[in-house]
Amino acid sequence: MGAAKSLLHPDRILPSEPQTRAIARRLYDSIKDLPIVSPHGHTDPSWYAENKPFADPASLLVVPDHYIFRMLYSQGVKLEDLGIKRRDGAAIESDPRKIWRRFADHYYLFRGTPTRSWLDHTLSTLFDLQERLGPSNADAFYDRIAECLAQPAYRPRALFERFNIEVIATTESPLDPLHHHQTLKNSGWAGRVVTAYRPDPVVDPDFDGFHANLHKLGEITGCDTGTWQGYLEAHRNRRSYFKSFGATSSDHGHPSAATADLSLSEITALYDKVRKGPVSAAEAELFRAQMLTEMARMSLDDGLVMQIHPGSVRNHNHVIMDKFGRDMGADIPSATNYVQALKPLLDRFGNERDLTVILFTLDETSYSRELAPLAGHYPCLRLGPPWWFFDSVEGMKRFREQAIETAGFYNTVGFNDDTRAFPSIPARHDVARRVDASFLAELVADHRLDEDEAHEIANDLTYRLVKQAYKL
Amino acid sequence: MGAAKSLLHPDRILPSEPQTRAIARRLYDSIKDLPIVSPHGHTDPSWYAENKPFADPASLLVVPDHYIFRMLYSQGVKLEDLGIKRRDGAAIESDPRKIWRRFADHYYLFRGTPTRSWLDHTLSTLFDLQERLGPSNADAFYDRIAECLAQPAYRPRALFERFNIEVIATTESPLDPLHHHQTLKNSGWAGRVVTAYRPDPVVDPDFDGFHANLHKLGEITGCDTGTWQGYLEAHRNRRSYFKSFGATSSDHGHPSAATADLSLSEITALYDKVRKGPVSAAEAELFRAQMLTEMARMSLDDGLVMQIHPGSVRNHNHVIMDKFGRDMGADIPSATNYVQALKPLLDRFGNERDLTVILFTLDETSYSRELAPLAGHYPCLRLGPPWWFFDSVEGMKRFREQAIETAGFYNTVGFNDDTRAFPSIPARHDVARRVDASFLAELVADHRLDEDEAHEIANDLTYRLVKQAYKL
Amino acid sequence: MGAAKSLLHPDRILPSEPQTRAIARRLYDSIKDLPIVSPHGHTDPSWYAENKPFADPASLLVVPDHYIFRMLYSQGVKLEDLGIKRRDGAAIESDPRKIWRRFADHYYLFRGTPTRSWLDHTLSTLFDLQERLGPSNADAFYDRIAECLAQPAYRPRALFERFNIEVIATTESPLDPLHHHQTLKNSGWAGRVVTAYRPDPVVDPDFDGFHANLHKLGEITGCDTGTWQGYLEAHRNRRSYFKSFGATSSDHGHPSAATADLSLSEITALYDKVRKGPVSAAEAELFRAQMLTEMARMSLDDGLVMQIHPGSVRNHNHVIMDKFGRDMGADIPSATNYVQALKPLLDRFGNERDLTVILFTLDETSYSRELAPLAGHYPCLRLGPPWWFFDSVEGMKRFREQAIETAGFYNTVGFNDDTRAFPSIPARHDVARRVDASFLAELVADHRLDEDEAHEIANDLTYRLVKQAYKL
Repeated sequence: MGAAKSLLHPDRILPSEPQTRAIARRLYDSIKDLPIVSPHGHTDPSWYAENKPFADPASLLVVPDHYIFRMLYSQGVKLEDLGIKRRDGAAIESDPRKIWRRFADHYYLFRGTPTRSWLDHTLSTLFDLQERLGPSNADAFYDRIAECLAQPAYRPRALFERFNIEVIATTESPLDPLHHHQTLKNSGWAGRVVTAYRPDPVVDPDFDGFHANLHKLGEITGCDTGTWQGYLEAHRNRRSYFKSFGATSSDHGHPSAATADLSLSEITALYDKVRKGPVSAAEAELFRAQMLTEMARMSLDDGLVMQIHPGSVRNHNHVIMDKFGRDMGADIPSATNYVQALKPLLDRFGNERDLTVILFTLDETSYSRELAPLAGHYPCLRLGPPWWFFDSVEGMKRFREQAIETAGFYNTVGFNDDTRAFPSIPARHDVARRVDASFLAELVADHRLDEDEAHEIANDLTYRLVKQAYKL
Repeated sequence: MGAAKSLLHPDRILPSEPQTRAIARRLYDSIKDLPIVSPHGHTDPSWYAENKPFADPASLLVVPDHYIFRMLYSQGVKLEDLGIKRRDGAAIESDPRKIWRRFADHYYLFRGTPTRSWLDHTLSTLFDLQERLGPSNADAFYDRIAECLAQPAYRPRALFERFNIEVIATTESPLDPLHHHQTLKNSGWAGRVVTAYRPDPVVDPDFDGFHANLHKLGEITGCDTGTWQGYLEAHRNRRSYFKSFGATSSDHGHPSAATADLSLSEITALYDKVRKGPVSAAEAELFRAQMLTEMARMSLDDGLVMQIHPGSVRNHNHVIMDKFGRDMGADIPSATNYVQALKPLLDRFGNERDLTVILFTLDETSYSRELAPLAGHYPCLRLGPPWWFFDSVEGMKRFREQAIETAGFYNTVGFNDDTRAFPSIPARHDVARRVDASFLAELVADHRLDEDEAHEIANDLTYRLVKQAYKL
Repeated sequence: MGAAKSLLHPDRILPSEPQTRAIARRLYDSIKDLPIVSPHGHTDPSWYAENKPFADPASLLVVPDHYIFRMLYSQGVKLEDLGIKRRDGAAIESDPRKIWRRFADHYYLFRGTPTRSWLDHTLSTLFDLQERLGPSNADAFYDRIAECLAQPAYRPRALFERFNIEVIATTESPLDPLHHHQTLKNSGWAGRVVTAYRPDPVVDPDFDGFHANLHKLGEITGCDTGTWQGYLEAHRNRRSYFKSFGATSSDHGHPSAATADLSLSEITALYDKVRKGPVSAAEAELFRAQMLTEMARMSLDDGLVMQIHPGSVRNHNHVIMDKFGRDMGADIPSATNYVQALKPLLDRFGNERDLTVILFTLDETSYSRELAPLAGHYPCLRLGPPWWFFDSVEGMKRFREQAIETAGFYNTVGFNDDTRAFPSIPARHDVARRVDASFLAELVADHRLDEDEAHEIANDLTYRLVKQAYKL
């Protein structure tokens, strides 16, 4: 385990060549303490609203983290043994210490993965645990973390402040009443937590409970979701409501990036089918496609920035879906086309300078072939940071190497942590800052960029471009 | 801006690790002064024929460069404000100094892009401007460049000689009378400028004015383009005419790499449809596909080297197409298949040792998966250098890393600048030489290659293989 | 040629940055002498069974190596002139010395390729030839190698022992009587040579002689391959027979990764069609797809580890196929989907912890997008090492960089040499060990991994994981 005083090396992730590392250090030092701007993520607003202590080490760090349980599952650990709730209510592991030990026993599986670096960062900086986690110190770690979590300094709002978060966005369904955001608004707490509009449950005909969701959307808004016009009006209504809780963006998690621009009669007829359901796979796809164009149209009116997160084959493992439900680590990327898929939306709104559409991908082949060329031309397009599996050192490097030469830095929007794992937020931003500093340092060392410019870009990527792109 | 005496660092682009850099320097030094062989590009032959002074800094360096105006457009600058002509003749910016200032204001957008390195090289080596371009020195730069352009030493032929160009190819349509090339031939000037045969306007049924073009082709050649045999004869006729102006290659810019090998009755019937038009998308694709095989057949007779540049979705932005026309920075790459697409042509001619087909791609995934394995087997195939968006430091690195292990160096053909931007030619060749020197230096530093071999390869890639592959 | 005492530099392939190289050396030193475990390959069991001397340098090192003859063919050398047998029995080069000289004349073509490093390793370590091969020393090399091959120390079993091979798997068709394996079993020789079950000839309706093969399978096993149940029984029978000769794995070389899970009536009807033939391309694909699922089902019973090697377009060059037959260097990779393709099999067996399915690819885009996410979730899946064209320094680097962050090291299975070229086995394993040491050294130098962990991983990748995954 070694006698290191810190689990974290100050130069971690920076380039190994000494002169390049020196440049990278200078760049990193100039951005490491900038406030965290987190424009897209999935933390639970009740944490900030209620400010209750986190329950225990396992339910804070293990049980909700799909990166963790997918890896353990891949190596034969049962999800039940990690405390993942079954839909049928069957018995699962309920002792958090046992879950923690199981995790520690398998911590070696994360060697070389981002999860390892995020966890080490959390253990070291948040809990002052300076050894490598493993079976022999699992209990000691558990006790130390549990002891911390009982203290006021480890409650959500205190951590929010300690993490130096300037603003964070959560993500909610149009059907969410935003009670927690209301509570926050009323609370007088200075922390800035905004929502974001994620309408998949009422836009995607394949979404669980879609028809009930449409009905509920009508009820909430008082709009007649039995008609296309009423349905659009309901969206406008909820977008406006979300804006009143600070929302500056919408977010769309479709299976593909398909967009459409149907005539009014076509879409009216399609909506009628979709509303009554069931529809074919092609009809569902066409409806989602049309809705991206509708959302862009609304964005031009209300100013919400649009995010498109396409290309995940959700719930690939039907056994896991049946037993445990959605979002259980069984989502798998697939090949994603943007060039033909986005054309209908871009034909309609691509040249609008007052629209911002931020594109994400799980198909890295699109960086240099499609996304950078598109974003390097269309005024409305910007490139989101590497997403999900690619929120990693190598993933970020590939994005920079493959996208920047064509898109430039200024058609990108800095970093998103996109996480459900609250304690990992500083770790994730720190990794992004280190990778950016390293990438820029290589350009400086190669004399492709001057160091003063690199400092400006580092600041832009960490802070200014994020706020500008997301209007935060 | 710094007090640097040169805007260009002598070690730019070379590896930062000192021992590897030393090897790279030796390799680069041995090739940096070799003559430029430019076997494929789009410079305007009238420049060399007429040898008139270039008009002003903006119309030389900004207005014709789609890399530049696409980036500025992506960030909200109107093309009209950059002096790009509208099809409807509406007013546009006509003051070159204002265009130059707009460009200088946005020069920071090019950080990390090839455009930045090409421009810096031009400013430094051609105009002795040794500061970084920006708003504060835009006017001074403008004045200096304008002053230079008025001098005889900055006329096209003088620059051609100064650039140490041994031979350059332009690219013309079969409908081009090659008057400028005729003028050049008659002029007695020693500069070697050859043409290349790019028949897309009379091969692609989707090309603007295709039917009129067919008619014109018949007129020019005296062949009856109303029949398939006459149409082929017209091609043979023009290819021969192009050869008399030094052409050693043809070039084909199709949406895909599809080839076909139809029976005579099938192709006769298809040509009849195509000639009368309109045809379906599939029929247009099939006709282009068949024509690649026909061109290969003619190459076996007349020796022209065939270049295939597939995979660009041309004029993706219909608003820009409508207002400004073709080639306005709105071409976007798309996924391109070679393995199935080329099979009909390869089944027919793939084993011919007297045929050379040079393949290019805008889909980098094909380097290791399709292109290198194909070129590493078929005697007729060679790989062209990284093209367009990938004519860049990172793009070239990826090509070398992904293609060479399977194709070897000797199934590649060195560098193409492929440019319309005359002053950038030395910069582009210099970048390619630096990247090649760096790639080879890494292999030497890793002891995967001996240094004497690396010197030989560097010379081959810069000079010998280009001349050999293109028969120049 | 230089006066180097060894053709091989002790630090070849290791990182050039001195501190990282020092780490890499320590890692490499700790694994370089571990025994070779070769769980998948295509060496000829008759070599070990009969232990005859290899005939001559050309037939040992040139004629059987498709990496070599494809490159020479791509540069205009005729296969006949390399001694490759024609199907029509026409005359070919029969003088091995002339073949060797032709190879030496073209040795420069392999600069930068894996073939070069494998050959240099063989020449240096096996034959003590410490100069670079070329035209001037071709005869001397030939004589030295020929002299060696005449000695007992160069017979197959002696080399097997010298190479420190702990176990090697060959690959045989179900129709193979395994006589050589029987001879080996009876011989008392201590070398461990096992077979592997490759049923393509009786599973792929497009395979040459498929119907005769089905008939022969019935004869060999006494099962009625005229029925679906009898056909499955015949597989079970042969798998069991292969297990009695040490087989621990099956191997499946399909054009795609398609799997299917048909009902009994569907598959019975399909088998009936396939058995009587001919079938459509789609029916052949569906049958192969169903058979992968059947093989997985059998693996659950008999414990054979399943390998899937999809995505090669076999015999792309029909002229070569007609003249010389299969496996003549004309196989080309193509885009390969796994996410949708594997779903039927995974829906049925993906969650089985007692099943191991090892996935390979010739489409590197699948590493980060599909394979690592799948293997990082499904308990039955593991990732095979970079295959064929990607069994190379850059290919292995890309695999590590693109797969490990999501799959971790422990969902991979170490190295396969997958070779027909017996003398190259130590070279191939040495390259893999050097690349792994280098990749791990970079992580240590970056402080992403501790050095003690890197040592453990290096050992796991070289030895422990291979034996575990393949149950050897």
